[in-house]
Amino acid sequence: MVSVIEGPFRELESKVQGVFSGGLASYLSNSLLSGFATGASLTILTSQFKYLLGLRIPRPQGWFTLFKTWYSLLTNLSNTNICDLVTSLVCLLILIPTKELNNRFKAKLKAPIPFELFVVVIATVASHFGRFDTDYGSGVAGDIPTGFLPPQLPMWTLIPSVAVDAFSIAIVGFAITVSLSEMFAKKHGYTVDANQELYAIGFCNILPSFFHCFTTSAALTKTLVKESTGCQTQISGLVSALVLLLVLLVIAPLFYSLQKCVLAVIILVNLRGALQKFTDIPSMWRVNRIDTSIWLITMATSALVNTELGLLVGVLVSALCVLGRTQRAQVLELGRATTREHYEDLSSYHGLWTHPGVAVFRYEAPIYYANQRLFKKSLYRCAGLDPVKEKTRLMKFKRKNKQQGDVARVPNKNSRDLEGAGKEDGFEAGATVTSMLNNKSSRSLHSLVIDCSAILFLDTAGVNALKEVFKDYEELGIKVVLAQCNISVQDSLERGGYYPVKKGCDGGENKMMFFTIADAVYYVQSLSPNRDYDRKC
Amino acid sequence: MVSVIEGPFRELESKVQGVFSGGLASYLSNSLLSGFATGASLTILTSQFKYLLGLRIPRPQGWFTLFKTWYSLLTNLSNTNICDLVTSLVCLLILIPTKELNNRFKAKLKAPIPFELFVVVIATVASHFGRFDTDYGSGVAGDIPTGFLPPQLPMWTLIPSVAVDAFSIAIVGFAITVSLSEMFAKKHGYTVDANQELYAIGFCNILPSFFHCFTTSAALTKTLVKESTGCQTQISGLVSALVLLLVLLVIAPLFYSLQKCVLAVIILVNLRGALQKFTDIPSMWRVNRIDTSIWLITMATSALVNTELGLLVGVLVSALCVLGRTQRAQVLELGRATTREHYEDLSSYHGLWTHPGVAVFRYEAPIYYANQRLFKKSLYRCAGLDPVKEKTRLMKFKRKNKQQGDVARVPNKNSRDLEGAGKEDGFEAGATVTSMLNNKSSRSLHSLVIDCSAILFLDTAGVNALKEVFKDYEELGIKVVLAQCNISVQDSLERGGYYPVKKGCDGGENKMMFFTIADAVYYVQSLSPNRDYDRKC
Repeated sequence: MVSVIEGPFRELESKVQGVFSGGLASYLSNSLLSGFATGASLTILTSQFKYLLGLRIPRPQGWFTLFKTWYSLLTNLSNTNICDLVTSLVCLLILIPTKELNNRFKAKLKAPIPFELFVVVIATVASHFGRFDTDYGSGVAGDIPTGFLPPQLPMWTLIPSVAVDAFSIAIVGFAITVSLSEMFAKKHGYTVDANQELYAIGFCNILPSFFHCFTTSAALTKTLVKESTGCQTQISGLVSALVLLLVLLVIAPLFYSLQKCVLAVIILVNLRGALQKFTDIPSMWRVNRIDTSIWLITMATSALVNTELGLLVGVLVSALCVLGRTQRAQVLELGRATTREHYEDLSSYHGLWTHPGVAVFRYEAPIYYANQRLFKKSLYRCAGLDPVKEKTRLMKFKRKNKQQGDVARVPNKNSRDLEGAGKEDGFEAGATVTSMLNNKSSRSLHSLVIDCSAILFLDTAGVNALKEVFKDYEELGIKVVLAQCNISVQDSLERGGYYPVKKGCDGGENKMMFFTIADAVYYVQSLSPNRDYDRKC
Repeated sequence: MVSVIEGPFRELESKVQGVFSGGLASYLSNSLLSGFATGASLTILTSQFKYLLGLRIPRPQGWFTLFKTWYSLLTNLSNTNICDLVTSLVCLLILIPTKELNNRFKAKLKAPIPFELFVVVIATVASHFGRFDTDYGSGVAGDIPTGFLPPQLPMWTLIPSVAVDAFSIAIVGFAITVSLSEMFAKKHGYTVDANQELYAIGFCNILPSFFHCFTTSAALTKTLVKESTGCQTQISGLVSALVLLLVLLVIAPLFYSLQKCVLAVIILVNLRGALQKFTDIPSMWRVNRIDTSIWLITMATSALVNTELGLLVGVLVSALCVLGRTQRAQVLELGRATTREHYEDLSSYHGLWTHPGVAVFRYEAPIYYANQRLFKKSLYRCAGLDPVKEKTRLMKFKRKNKQQGDVARVPNKNSRDLEGAGKEDGFEAGATVTSMLNNKSSRSLHSLVIDCSAILFLDTAGVNALKEVFKDYEELGIKVVLAQCNISVQDSLERGGYYPVKKGCDGGENKMMFFTIADAVYYVQSLSPNRDYDRKC
């Protein structure tokens, strides 16, 4: 009833779009939906404050309505209706404690005690006989129309202005209905078909759109009440409908004198759960920072900027967070457990052994266009040897050697000076080589094994990145072999031309890929002339 | 020069935005950039056709310009200027073969022969002395202003109308410059700092914006020509600039009589590479279908709808494809290699062994909000045992038993019939149990091992999904253990409350997590009373 009087009236025919939104619903995470609900609640709470104070200010439109509403509330504060303010405070003082009592004893009570109903009845009687309406200028519900409007075609001209709202209502309504029904299905042991639900909600909204109805979707509290009072079949729905019919046709006009502020208080009290969500932020943060960030961003955007935009921003931020995780992945160096053919991350576990000359790496993300550069960078850093930089050094060294040679070949009077310079050059070049060798010998790697077990897939850029790594290290005389590639990765490597096709040979020899890391390590060790003992880290 | 005359004149001050776009550039895959370039080329090609035919039609604005342009071209076909058409055809017939010759012998030629220049000079002379301008109504370049305009503040009022274009130019320009410079850096052995490049391009565009200049970025063909002719330092840039200065100040007016259609032909011939890209589609498709789809979508959107929209759509589609891959992941059942502690996918390899009563599964994707439902569904299907459905059956069975009990307790005259019904019920219930047992005994599982080595991370929804799987199977007496979890997954499980905290015990017993699949299998086999021999598949 409250929503019939207070809520913004919306044509719902666009709900038809809901039928097409099934695929999107799985992209709505719980943190997103919860953040969206909290943000929307804040907007609704804000819109009710003017009734609490009895102010008559227009409803702001467009974006940033929260700020606009608070601005007009504060500038109009002097026009507060004292009668409305007092009624609001009294109702709040009654309802908040009684609601808390209901919550505390809900295990013992079959159904919550309807304090709201008592408050509404008492307030109506008080307002009627106290004539708050005429004597104190209090805003009352006024004439409430009874009966039904004749069925009518939806106003198609409204679609452009309600389409965006309708779309987000459809998605959120569907997501809430499905998660609610799955919750109860699990509790009572039956299964729910999400597509079936989608059709049901779709048709439940198409037909009533000819009768000036609101959007239908599942309501958590009502379902919980019905379940706890023992409702099992749809007869309970019929009973509820009959009671509502009675209210609509007969009882509604009796509430003529009910102050609007009483209704606003009821909305406020019932939405206080949204505010309590804020106290959960620290514990949410400890469990999962990313989900909490999504919650905060969705909530802030919905509340502060625009409700529908919040939903869109939430979906995009959630998707980007998943992508972002693949970008944050680092190459890890692995070590072998002493007695087993098992390799684990060196930085996380103690007592692992490494093989001299062989480094084993793991990358825990797919390699694709957006992170292939990061993969290479991370691998080079982890290996302590950037083949591109090494190559640069080698080239500089060669160039200097060549210059030195050219200079030496020119006989002139400055030959002594030039020879001195040549020697200096030679010295510098020698230093470069030494530093290069130092750099290499600090690891003295002859092979790299890349464990691909956590590489889910490769796209073309990923295959090219692996090709580059293979080629660049090969030029420095370091062999790169892959281990534990899954079928999809093997397929991508094959089709992406990772294995050079050689004529006259079966190419099997070049396929440096192994089922286990241990096999790969044995193989590369067998290639190396001087085998050494393993080192403990 | 062509672009100075023909191109759409754009204020470039908004290029400042390029400085902020660094993070986005890594989201531009090669297939996206290539598709975008092809789409843009198609748009440019289309815009040149009116010059080829000598038509004077206005440039269409907004979306779907390709269709609009072709529509107006076809409707105005009767106004074709024969002189322009003939010149175009002659130029095309000269330029296409000579370009191909240049391509074929580019290995032998130090620099390509500038046939375009010859054509322009000859065409100008022909047009001047043949008076194509006045005698045949051919469109000519007309007065080309020489000298420089005085420096001037950019027109800030233009920003709203050019901001979107400028943004996409900045991103694409940056991405092309970085990939080009990395290509050459690799070839010549030096390293490139992408951030440094970003600053360089940024400042190269901020300063000239006061001098009515175009956006600067790297050009592949010019760089290749300079490299092949042996340019090494920036002196070569100075020489090019001086030649251009000469053209701008002195030579430009000489081209007064040059027909516009000649310039259009040059653009057409140089962009024909974009059309040749279409012949690569089949081979691209064989290598990687997803990348090819991204190419096609980006190309089609850029060409048919709107160039800038194509870029945005491409970025979103690429990101969604990566997300989509995690949604396509299936739970795989693993089998053990005969002699090794190694497990591989049963459907991809032959000769693997399974353990009776124990099934080993792998899921090759992170489990997060958007795919946790799919993970559970796939796991249940792969295990051949949906715990939720089993539970439903059990509940129905119990309910029937209870009804039967109630009925049996009611002594009345129909007791015989009712007992019959009860028996039938009992029979049905028995059938249910049998089918349930059959279903179970076909696998007769007592434990499930989930290999998490390819699960990169879990979010809150992922942890909850694993919790549900554990609890649901536990209710059916089936133990679920996890193996090979990486550090991030272990952390998420710990913080997400996967391990129930029990008072008075250290909780270590409940942590069903193992470093290897083999350990997990041994453990669950040791729990089961009747151990059996392994089966070969």
